[in-house]
Amino acid sequence: MGEPRELSELLTQAAQLADLEIVAYLLDWDQETTMPPHGAAARANHLATIATVRHEKLTNPQIGRWLDALESWEDGSDPDSDEVRSLRRIRRDYRKAVEVPAKLAAERAHAQATGVESWRLAREASDFGMYRDSLALQIELARQYADCFSGQFEAPYDAVLDDFEPGMTAELVSELFTELQEALVPVIAQTKSDHFERSAFRGPHELADQERAVKWLLPFLGFDPGSWRLDVTTHPFGGSYGLGDIRISTRYDRMYFEDAFYGVLHEFGHGLYGGSLDPKLDRTPIGSINSAAMHESQSRTWENLVGRSRAFAEWSFPHLKRLLPNGFPAQNPYELFQELNSVQPSLIRVDAEEYTYNLHLVLRFELERAIVNGELSVDELPAKWNEEMMRLLGVEVPNDAQGVLQDPHWAGGAFGYFPTYTIGNMISAQLWEGVERDVPEIHSEIEKGNFAPLREWQRDNVHQHAARYSTKELLDRVVGEPLSPKPLINYLTAKLKESGRLT
Amino acid sequence: MGEPRELSELLTQAAQLADLEIVAYLLDWDQETTMPPHGAAARANHLATIATVRHEKLTNPQIGRWLDALESWEDGSDPDSDEVRSLRRIRRDYRKAVEVPAKLAAERAHAQATGVESWRLAREASDFGMYRDSLALQIELARQYADCFSGQFEAPYDAVLDDFEPGMTAELVSELFTELQEALVPVIAQTKSDHFERSAFRGPHELADQERAVKWLLPFLGFDPGSWRLDVTTHPFGGSYGLGDIRISTRYDRMYFEDAFYGVLHEFGHGLYGGSLDPKLDRTPIGSINSAAMHESQSRTWENLVGRSRAFAEWSFPHLKRLLPNGFPAQNPYELFQELNSVQPSLIRVDAEEYTYNLHLVLRFELERAIVNGELSVDELPAKWNEEMMRLLGVEVPNDAQGVLQDPHWAGGAFGYFPTYTIGNMISAQLWEGVERDVPEIHSEIEKGNFAPLREWQRDNVHQHAARYSTKELLDRVVGEPLSPKPLINYLTAKLKESGRLT
Repeated sequence: MGEPRELSELLTQAAQLADLEIVAYLLDWDQETTMPPHGAAARANHLATIATVRHEKLTNPQIGRWLDALESWEDGSDPDSDEVRSLRRIRRDYRKAVEVPAKLAAERAHAQATGVESWRLAREASDFGMYRDSLALQIELARQYADCFSGQFEAPYDAVLDDFEPGMTAELVSELFTELQEALVPVIAQTKSDHFERSAFRGPHELADQERAVKWLLPFLGFDPGSWRLDVTTHPFGGSYGLGDIRISTRYDRMYFEDAFYGVLHEFGHGLYGGSLDPKLDRTPIGSINSAAMHESQSRTWENLVGRSRAFAEWSFPHLKRLLPNGFPAQNPYELFQELNSVQPSLIRVDAEEYTYNLHLVLRFELERAIVNGELSVDELPAKWNEEMMRLLGVEVPNDAQGVLQDPHWAGGAFGYFPTYTIGNMISAQLWEGVERDVPEIHSEIEKGNFAPLREWQRDNVHQHAARYSTKELLDRVVGEPLSPKPLINYLTAKLKESGRLT
Repeated sequence: MGEPRELSELLTQAAQLADLEIVAYLLDWDQETTMPPHGAAARANHLATIATVRHEKLTNPQIGRWLDALESWEDGSDPDSDEVRSLRRIRRDYRKAVEVPAKLAAERAHAQATGVESWRLAREASDFGMYRDSLALQIELARQYADCFSGQFEAPYDAVLDDFEPGMTAELVSELFTELQEALVPVIAQTKSDHFERSAFRGPHELADQERAVKWLLPFLGFDPGSWRLDVTTHPFGGSYGLGDIRISTRYDRMYFEDAFYGVLHEFGHGLYGGSLDPKLDRTPIGSINSAAMHESQSRTWENLVGRSRAFAEWSFPHLKRLLPNGFPAQNPYELFQELNSVQPSLIRVDAEEYTYNLHLVLRFELERAIVNGELSVDELPAKWNEEMMRLLGVEVPNDAQGVLQDPHWAGGAFGYFPTYTIGNMISAQLWEGVERDVPEIHSEIEKGNFAPLREWQRDNVHQHAARYSTKELLDRVVGEPLSPKPLINYLTAKLKESGRLT
């Protein structure tokens, strides 16, 4: 017995929607990487049109009729089958989309594309004022968007959060973040004044040397030029752009090679996840990963659990010493490991080390929740940002470029995205407990530069499934636990002890 | 009195169609320029989906109802207004599109994307057999496409030709090409055995030197990095990807710098045309240039009428001598001019000089007309190609890579495109008569490296209008003549005399 005709029809539409999603990603990739700057206004139109077409396609009343017609088939079918999971995903997306007028969807897409350009100029000038109106429009549009779901969410912010982490609520985030913050702040206070500096990767290192070191690393990780590319962009990113097309980017700072080297490890993790799905899920409703936190967990695994581990320092030390002829201050692998795990509250999220990093996200979560819920005005934002930086991290913000203007997320209308970074850190530590359980030799393999066992574990347990399971289901399958900050707290504390920073 | 509501609705749909057309171009650009090779299958899906969406949008019955509702408004309006011209263009596109089933449109887009990859591999291996089935499928799909318009065109080939040059017929092409061939063959025979070699740009020239020379040239032409970019691709191309986003590509051959230098002049002409439309035509039905021949005329103007003129040789000679330190054999500007105008029948169309170039197109026109009309089979094609190369150019084809596999057009399903190259050459010579009439100092300005007067003439007379006028109308407005090979014949003959190659 084959699948019902209505399901085939729905899956055809879903495949086209999956293509259009990737086309939009490619237009973004192009804008970040290759587009001449004066093309920004036209690009905003292209993105708005793709958004309109996706919206028209997803909200076509025919989709609703097919979904209705399949209800009894669904009731009689295996709820764990890919077909039923696909159907549930279409139903969820359809129900969310029909609430949003096409005009608003197009306006948001357009404002997001132009917003990033306006943010870029404002950041260059370190002038929040230049970006204020564009941000105010994004907030207004996010609120209008949230209003479309009146009654379905606790508050406007919960509606946008749900787009990046389905089923997540601000209340739960707040609870998890409080537990994390309460555990981390005293640990950080105990280690803050340590005498180690993060100097191992400090430059000057010629960009050609840095590029050579990155190109040395990538093949070990699993980067194959037949399917992958690496570019240079202001804000690094990584992901899949269709089967066999994985793109990551990084940036080079002559004075600070950690940025490029660990940035590449991070984006590699994103690319590997996106590019390793079971091909039979490709272009299906469950082939496109819909949990930003799960995605982030994979990038942070490679960047931190792998890249800042003692085993990785043991393996990479002699190579880095050779590849960076301008000098590599660490004298031995253990010193490298120590330097990779120093604790230094700082201004810029993407430069922050693992220990204070999550406090940057606590700040962003609180601020974006307040602005989307209408409890904080856009004009109050820069001062509030600076105040919270002092409260949480004890850091004085000298200017907007190093403060409220540092990240492009709000410029791109992505309110609700920030918490997924820290949730991703939590997941990475939870899943790592699964890796250590199933692959006890993982540390000694990393020490040999052999990352294949990790890639295989990830592919089997996480990557191949793409969006087949929710975050909750996947954690339950792999580690038998709900989302929790405890493994992250344990991992961070243990590593501070291992590196001699906490006694 | 504003425009009727139906017209606004149509124009909104047309703007989205214009965006989707550019999105498809960008996906092609990305595939040629940046995509990892294993992404080809996914990209074929993306392009097929965009083609499907465009087709669905254009053939929506609502478009037909709006067009019907506007008939009486159109009858009472100025037929030369942009609105009426836009409406006519939508009507034409709609009528052509409704004849084609969506499934066939998607199949063609898919086969075109995979076809280019299969051609690439076959060309690398110089093995037509590897590409045979893919080409046979393209031909079959082109014939199915042509069948959709039964009775509207003389023969299947006329239907595909009309896509690239609206209103053109194979009969007229044949007539124009016969006149051209009959005039050129004896001229070429008289100069063929000349002793000059095309050595001015012969290498080895280090790629870094070549790049420096190209980067020296571009700003004089009008290349502004705010709106333009230059990349390296196997098959160079140039065009507009939205207002303010003009992209050209070239390729560097260590032994033959003419390829890169004149390639850039050529693609610059395409880019300038596409990027110089009246902004009020942007995203309208007449903002997208629909005559491939008119486009080609602009590239050939910069490559040949400008770049291979005596004035350009006078200006560029001292600079090229300085920029190419490995040696520049021409001793003076006149020698450079002579070398740029040697006559040497050769294998590869894109390397051919102006004089024999058109014979390559006569060959392609005859062959593609025969295969699309079912008078020649795909298996007979390589031998027929080689036979015609001998007949028209007296050249022996050593292998498929330098023969039937040299161009990607058929691999991309673009039957009917080739003749537009030669029609473009005809137009370029016809319009140049207008330039010389209106800007008598054009040669002395080029001798000074001042290209602004030409750019302005082109913008005012040609570029700003985009697709406002048909080729026929534009020639009539600018030079008061129908399409004719005579100005091209006169120009080529005169230049051979000026360079001392013909007495």
